[in-house]
Amino acid sequence: MKKFMNTAETMVAESMEGFVRAHQEFVVFGAERKCIRRRHLTPNKVAIISGGGAGHEPMHIGFVGKGMLDAACVGHIFTSPTPSQIISAIEEADTGAGCLLIVKNYDGDIMNFEMAMEMVADRHRMEAVIVSDDIETAGIGQGRGRRGVAGTLVVEKIIGAAAERGMALHELKRIGDRLNGRVRTMGVALSGVTVPQTQRTTFSLNAAEMEMGVGIHGEPGHSREYFSTSDVIVRRLCETICGDISMPPGAKALLFVNGLGGTPPAELYLAYDAAHRFMEERSIPIERALVGTYVTSLDMQGLSVTLALLTDEEISLWDSPVATAALRWSS
Amino acid sequence: MKKFMNTAETMVAESMEGFVRAHQEFVVFGAERKCIRRRHLTPNKVAIISGGGAGHEPMHIGFVGKGMLDAACVGHIFTSPTPSQIISAIEEADTGAGCLLIVKNYDGDIMNFEMAMEMVADRHRMEAVIVSDDIETAGIGQGRGRRGVAGTLVVEKIIGAAAERGMALHELKRIGDRLNGRVRTMGVALSGVTVPQTQRTTFSLNAAEMEMGVGIHGEPGHSREYFSTSDVIVRRLCETICGDISMPPGAKALLFVNGLGGTPPAELYLAYDAAHRFMEERSIPIERALVGTYVTSLDMQGLSVTLALLTDEEISLWDSPVATAALRWSS
Repeated sequence: MKKFMNTAETMVAESMEGFVRAHQEFVVFGAERKCIRRRHLTPNKVAIISGGGAGHEPMHIGFVGKGMLDAACVGHIFTSPTPSQIISAIEEADTGAGCLLIVKNYDGDIMNFEMAMEMVADRHRMEAVIVSDDIETAGIGQGRGRRGVAGTLVVEKIIGAAAERGMALHELKRIGDRLNGRVRTMGVALSGVTVPQTQRTTFSLNAAEMEMGVGIHGEPGHSREYFSTSDVIVRRLCETICGDISMPPGAKALLFVNGLGGTPPAELYLAYDAAHRFMEERSIPIERALVGTYVTSLDMQGLSVTLALLTDEEISLWDSPVATAALRWSS
Repeated sequence: MKKFMNTAETMVAESMEGFVRAHQEFVVFGAERKCIRRRHLTPNKVAIISGGGAGHEPMHIGFVGKGMLDAACVGHIFTSPTPSQIISAIEEADTGAGCLLIVKNYDGDIMNFEMAMEMVADRHRMEAVIVSDDIETAGIGQGRGRRGVAGTLVVEKIIGAAAERGMALHELKRIGDRLNGRVRTMGVALSGVTVPQTQRTTFSLNAAEMEMGVGIHGEPGHSREYFSTSDVIVRRLCETICGDISMPPGAKALLFVNGLGGTPPAELYLAYDAAHRFMEERSIPIERALVGTYVTSLDMQGLSVTLALLTDEEISLWDSPVATAALRWSS
């Protein structure tokens, strides 16, 4: 697999440069390019900050803008941003009401975000929400160790909208923690990930194989299985998700089919059709849908299915206006 | 290359089904599923209609909605829709002010759209705009035979916005014809296209090769060249484009980097960076940017660069609100 790149060393910086050039109406670089932040910050609104390794674009930089994130920092490929980058994002984005940091549940990210928060604890009010929507890492029913994957988008959108409405830091923390418990994601890969340094894939699959339960870092998944039809694959993802979460009374579902980087829109729509039919059979009311390439694992061929069970208030927050590079609607 | 599909025969229908399910706020199927149209049509607005083969998603179905298309029809993979489908789109979308049909310049499409228009000429007022933005098909300087590729999005957005403003059919035809002459696209592929029936690629490239001047149907391009860095590849595309078009006085440029299906967002941003730098060096004023996967060739790894030289009025039409599955902004 070939890539559009110049050198592996400059790839992330050049991609970020292109992103900022193309989306100047929404974003600017922070000082020393340690973070990307909104062009226009809102005084006395809680700042919503996220970040993580590169290689997942458009997440998180594509979610910076009115209605979602205030700033995002990007590490090397599949590597947490440094505490210095995270501190820079906090300092640039905090306009007086404190910061909520949204962190995907990986050891490296947790460590660096905690370290950054400790280092500026005397100057900023901060809370963190940890996202852990991937059901496959630690096995069914076991909450610890689960990773943050595509469901992070849902958490960032809903917290971002709540912050825009003027909610206080502790309220946003509570909304985020509760929501995280009702978001589940599972992914499947048809190929490994091409590592920029070597231009080789992290794992290889023959024509009859697929990798179930993959994350977004090119690591092998939960099991290697026989490749099958879209209906069989998507049903397997949806059954696992539905077996891991129960429908709270009155909840409404958001169904999200996410491309992992190398999968074209036509296939994502076809997979969405299978996922939607599955949920209908189970009488799960799909009230909102999202289909597209939002949380990637470099050029991996594959997709994930996310089910988020939302309250009426969360549906209203999801529907609220958002103006970012990757998600944009007016109401 | 594996695909998310059930059978090659049902692939297009299932993908369309998923698309309509996911975007019910914008679109509905027309009668007998011959076309996809806006959920809410506007009386006495000129209807903007497009269509073409499947395999280019989200084009054109993802452009149906307020501010862009009124209806789109989709043929088999890489195959024109039938006259019967096109007639269905005309009949469903015409609300009294006539129809403008936007047709990509391929023999099959031209033939079927012309046939459809002849068959209903006594009942509908119609004009057609032919899009031919691909500079590589017929060689530099030779206008005939050029294909319609990613620049079609620009034409559909600007005509769609003009129709929303209440412009008459003959005005829209004039706007479209003039604009088409100022839009140029060139593409490059790092892989062929996987044909659903065989799951094999249309052409194969080794690790040191790329295909320059490709279209969106998996056909080989203009020349096979040595694979290189993103900067070298993008510079080659931009030089060819700039050598084929001259800057009208006062024109403003829209620069559009489009993914062909298998290329992740991070690489598109990196390529955009190179294209933007090139245009800056040539003193071409980039006033608007678009980066993303909008006009695909199934799962082809590759991208195209489109340069559109716009008048102030066209820039204003580009900025006008649009609410479709693939393009959405409020102002």
